[in-house]
Amino acid sequence: MTESSLTVAVIDPSRARAAILEEGLRAAGIGRVVVIPDTADLQERVAALAPDVVVIHLESPSRDILEQMSAVTRHAERPVAMFVDRSDAAMMQAAVDAGISAYVVDGLRAERIKPILDIAILRFNAFARLQRELSEAKGELADRKLIERAKGILMNLKGLSEEEAYKQLRRKAMNEKRKIVDIARAIVTTADLLG
Amino acid sequence: MTESSLTVAVIDPSRARAAILEEGLRAAGIGRVVVIPDTADLQERVAALAPDVVVIHLESPSRDILEQMSAVTRHAERPVAMFVDRSDAAMMQAAVDAGISAYVVDGLRAERIKPILDIAILRFNAFARLQRELSEAKGELADRKLIERAKGILMNLKGLSEEEAYKQLRRKAMNEKRKIVDIARAIVTTADLLG
Repeated sequence: MTESSLTVAVIDPSRARAAILEEGLRAAGIGRVVVIPDTADLQERVAALAPDVVVIHLESPSRDILEQMSAVTRHAERPVAMFVDRSDAAMMQAAVDAGISAYVVDGLRAERIKPILDIAILRFNAFARLQRELSEAKGELADRKLIERAKGILMNLKGLSEEEAYKQLRRKAMNEKRKIVDIARAIVTTADLLG
Repeated sequence: MTESSLTVAVIDPSRARAAILEEGLRAAGIGRVVVIPDTADLQERVAALAPDVVVIHLESPSRDILEQMSAVTRHAERPVAMFVDRSDAAMMQAAVDAGISAYVVDGLRAERIKPILDIAILRFNAFARLQRELSEAKGELADRKLIERAKGILMNLKGLSEEEAYKQLRRKAMNEKRKIVDIARAIVTTADLLG
């Protein structure tokens, strides 16, 4: 994505500081900069705007803001770069836990915004890739466990070999145009209910 | 870990800039600061020193340095904070790919070093945790596949039920005080060789 096609949401309760951020972003060639001048209903307003990146500047972050930013970065899948004038260790930890891609303490200068934004986007992508891989691996593991359980249930109930149990699962899935794991889940759910 | 128990390696080819970093780190209460004044054999020297964190400052990073830092952060499991005077997009991508925990362009000031270091350590830990989880999930998946294959081989060769095949695997593992997956791996290897 090139800069000119990016929409950046700037959140800053101070009009003067918001202007610094806006200036830095425009100078960096960002196509669309939208300023959100306060932090009420932040999560909803960011969702409605659907920017590519969120840049937020606060004197010092609150738990509430960090929680809202956590929702922005996790569910809506967009990087957040946060500038704060001061921070303590607990806030830093909360910011990293919230998935904030850049957390910059006392480092706001218009000309530094662009590289910080660039790194935040790259870091966000790297983290998101790792999370996606993890969720795929966990999903595959969970699917395998379900299919194993369903096979075991069929083998016991119908006196089938493992191979035959798997074949029956696969045939059922093909006939119903569903995934094997969905058939397996139905069998496990039913067996849990009846057992 | 408190600051006073940390060892930080400072890498900076310029003596004047190294002094700024050293000053910032000492002012932040870092217990031990060791300066590495050039970038020759960087990876080996960092490994020998075994610092808790690496702080490196360069005018502009080279591919070679980034590769060495990638080895530092991945294998030796320690965070790297990198300060550069200028960077292009390709270098930023390479730095993020190399697992650099903080990549700061044109932002070196003694009083900003401490928060940057703190964030780098937290971010490194968050990323390392995710990587560990991923490698565990992948390992468990690979183990399950091996055990499934070994069971299938035993079932075919010895005409066993799935249950009996698994029991035999487990009994062999218990008798030899090894893990089931190790027995499974031996069976799969042998079958591959013979088949």
